Amino acid sequence: MDKTIPVKTYISETEAPQYWYNLRADMKEKHPPFIHPGELRPCVAEDLYPIFCKELVKQELNQTDQLIPIPDGIQQFYKMFRPSPLIRAYSLEKALGTPAAIYYKFEGNNTSGSHKLNSAATQAYYAKQEGITSLATETGAGQWGTALAMACDYYDIDLTVYMVKVSSEQKPYRKIVMETYAAKVIPSPSPTTESGRKILALDPNTGGSLGCAISEAIEKAVTTENCRYVLGSVLDHVLLHQSVVGLEAKTALDKYGITPDVIIGCAGGGSNLGGLIAPYMGGRLQGKNNIQFIAVEPQSCPSFTRGKYTYDFGDTAKTTPLMKMYTLGNGFIPSANHAGGLRYHGMSPILSKLYNDGYLEARAYSQTDVFDAAKLFIKTEGILPAPESTHALKAAIDIARECTKTGEKKTILFGLTGTGYFDLMAYAQHNNGTLSDKVPTDEELQAGFDSIPNLPAKFSD
Amino acid sequence: MDKTIPVKTYISETEAPQYWYNLRADMKEKHPPFIHPGELRPCVAEDLYPIFCKELVKQELNQTDQLIPIPDGIQQFYKMFRPSPLIRAYSLEKALGTPAAIYYKFEGNNTSGSHKLNSAATQAYYAKQEGITSLATETGAGQWGTALAMACDYYDIDLTVYMVKVSSEQKPYRKIVMETYAAKVIPSPSPTTESGRKILALDPNTGGSLGCAISEAIEKAVTTENCRYVLGSVLDHVLLHQSVVGLEAKTALDKYGITPDVIIGCAGGGSNLGGLIAPYMGGRLQGKNNIQFIAVEPQSCPSFTRGKYTYDFGDTAKTTPLMKMYTLGNGFIPSANHAGGLRYHGMSPILSKLYNDGYLEARAYSQTDVFDAAKLFIKTEGILPAPESTHALKAAIDIARECTKTGEKKTILFGLTGTGYFDLMAYAQHNNGTLSDKVPTDEELQAGFDSIPNLPAKFSD
Repeated sequence: MDKTIPVKTYISETEAPQYWYNLRADMKEKHPPFIHPGELRPCVAEDLYPIFCKELVKQELNQTDQLIPIPDGIQQFYKMFRPSPLIRAYSLEKALGTPAAIYYKFEGNNTSGSHKLNSAATQAYYAKQEGITSLATETGAGQWGTALAMACDYYDIDLTVYMVKVSSEQKPYRKIVMETYAAKVIPSPSPTTESGRKILALDPNTGGSLGCAISEAIEKAVTTENCRYVLGSVLDHVLLHQSVVGLEAKTALDKYGITPDVIIGCAGGGSNLGGLIAPYMGGRLQGKNNIQFIAVEPQSCPSFTRGKYTYDFGDTAKTTPLMKMYTLGNGFIPSANHAGGLRYHGMSPILSKLYNDGYLEARAYSQTDVFDAAKLFIKTEGILPAPESTHALKAAIDIARECTKTGEKKTILFGLTGTGYFDLMAYAQHNNGTLSDKVPTDEELQAGFDSIPNLPAKFSD
Repeated sequence: MDKTIPVKTYISETEAPQYWYNLRADMKEKHPPFIHPGELRPCVAEDLYPIFCKELVKQELNQTDQLIPIPDGIQQFYKMFRPSPLIRAYSLEKALGTPAAIYYKFEGNNTSGSHKLNSAATQAYYAKQEGITSLATETGAGQWGTALAMACDYYDIDLTVYMVKVSSEQKPYRKIVMETYAAKVIPSPSPTTESGRKILALDPNTGGSLGCAISEAIEKAVTTENCRYVLGSVLDHVLLHQSVVGLEAKTALDKYGITPDVIIGCAGGGSNLGGLIAPYMGGRLQGKNNIQFIAVEPQSCPSFTRGKYTYDFGDTAKTTPLMKMYTLGNGFIPSANHAGGLRYHGMSPILSKLYNDGYLEARAYSQTDVFDAAKLFIKTEGILPAPESTHALKAAIDIARECTKTGEKKTILFGLTGTGYFDLMAYAQHNNGTLSDKVPTDEELQAGFDSIPNLPAKFSD
């Protein structure tokens, strides 16, 4: 064991980031703008104000400022659960017999159990500042909903959470924890909204999807006075908030003079990966490093590895602005997969652009393979990871095992985004060998692609 | 907000304790020895070897060495989850409008969700060193069982956990998490042991108790080759291991020149409280401070506040050595109370002696009152506490509120022993107003006292 580097590195509160890192400022080519679905023109701020808080709209459209100050009030909230530890996986390395050095940034040490609280705290703060009295959102695995419930309880804001039905059934405790933080939780699709009723009419037994829950939450926000919608991933401003993860990791590693060779994150909507890589990818775009960046997704919802890079809606009801992204089609509904947070049909426009331009790689794994990796991690490192996080973990283990063969001393950094305390039914299924490895057939993918809108040729460059 | 003290203080790994603090060395009067139940004489090491690992027996009987070295191997394991944060509760203080300064030592940031891992890691380590191949234990709320499952998985030791039946039914996820760490979990009382069958014959519908689960685990240990029993609380060596909690807290507070006025912990078997107060109580016994120490227990299982200080068995089947302690009687079975970890009929002999001698105070609270306190904590500090921990929290809040009235600027330190992620049914009941506040009647207490053995007069000094 390398005695010079501790198992856990916590930067001090005075070293904590005072700015978010806006990766877009470093991108010579930005991702294409949102398109207004009715008028087929680039969106402007005014289009988004009815849906989002104003400050968040400003952040969403800011492609030029590399550093954006974190208000004092948010820094105070962050101190409740940040800085998070950067952990050297000595025990895992030993079990793998690898010459690689494995680090992970662990975001699970807060009640929501994940990195989601970074953006939830921020979005609730701005809502409070702008006099918003209620918020609506969707949640898949429940991490985002829990995070936002915590933030809204802290700021005394009413919250309604539309929870993907299959997740709400698999994770009853998630509902209770959100309710304990005073949120109202509604399984989606629900009869409480127009878009929910439409989806139920088509298939009363649907397990729901994030795209569908988003439709319900947006409808709730725009039809309720002084209410706004908040999203926990995908959008540029959410990736911006998550940059605290990467900034803290970089501050810690810089202390030891270490730059990773590989950085790995799981990718559902892309916020954790986008946040983890932000300052490092910024450096790569400036020619300062040559880091390998890897996005990992489930084979059951393979947006990067089997999706198309095209304009699509963010939701099933086709109400959001059109975003150019890797997508399986807004109508794609993944099989009931326990890695709930990675069930989204689309992908962050920033990450989509980076992937398309060759700066980011992607891998897809089966559920059994990622849970096998989780079991080794549980035994050696103690932490029981969220099913989402296990995807990044699996890739890290694979690369470390390659190093065992080649003798390469790679430095690997991966994002351990959260804990799996509320995902235990998935672990129970893995324990007894009944975990599903279903992946979409070509026909199922085609059905998803068929839901992508046909835009005029000028939008398909 | 006092800017000079951060919200969270983590001591560094190099500052971490290298010795456990053996509080008994500072006690001028030691607690009376264990009594061999068959031969009515003080126990010697040889009496305990069939049950416990040798090194633990040595620690149990060591009343003279104040500092006992923590082996390197255990220090390495501790680094997986320690040091734990010392947190200044600025947000809670603000909500209370109190001039008091509230600190809490938070032990919940590990998968077992509590301080129990401190002793589990230690006991599994010694078992491995001594060539033991399997361990047996009991668990109430499930925190101890999970902690030991983690430690045994790490050291490749087989583990059987007898889980109090009422807890196993209320907390199915606990069972899964232990099984994920490769443990075998059996609801107690069970038909797999002689003592379990006896208890079931008396009442097939019993919810079980810690005392009864202990009987089963000991029976398993002494009837299985190369197997030993491990206990997660009550015993002196367990309190010794938990002293890392108090030592870390003291190291952190000493940096700021702070000595608490009041130290508070919840008390079931007493290990977390005994560990938290160890170095401070040692100082008090040496005349170096005048700290107020408070044990908090549930009204449903009031060992200190309504129990008797006398020799009693540690288990329901009357198989353990007799310990002089505050007890409700080994036959006492508390009502199905969600604060599972505080359901034990007895109390640490060390804490019992300190309480009897006036160094330690005790308070008992109703379940609704502690969950009300938890709700304020959840909202302000974000963390969702374990039902056990909420008892200490409630006392801290009460004292801080007194300070609001009197203007006293007391410094309060309490132990936030764990998280309530697996106790959400209790929170759900609190959310919907169906939580039970049942406390034992005088008749029920008397029935418990009737189970206490009558010893010769020489043991009742």
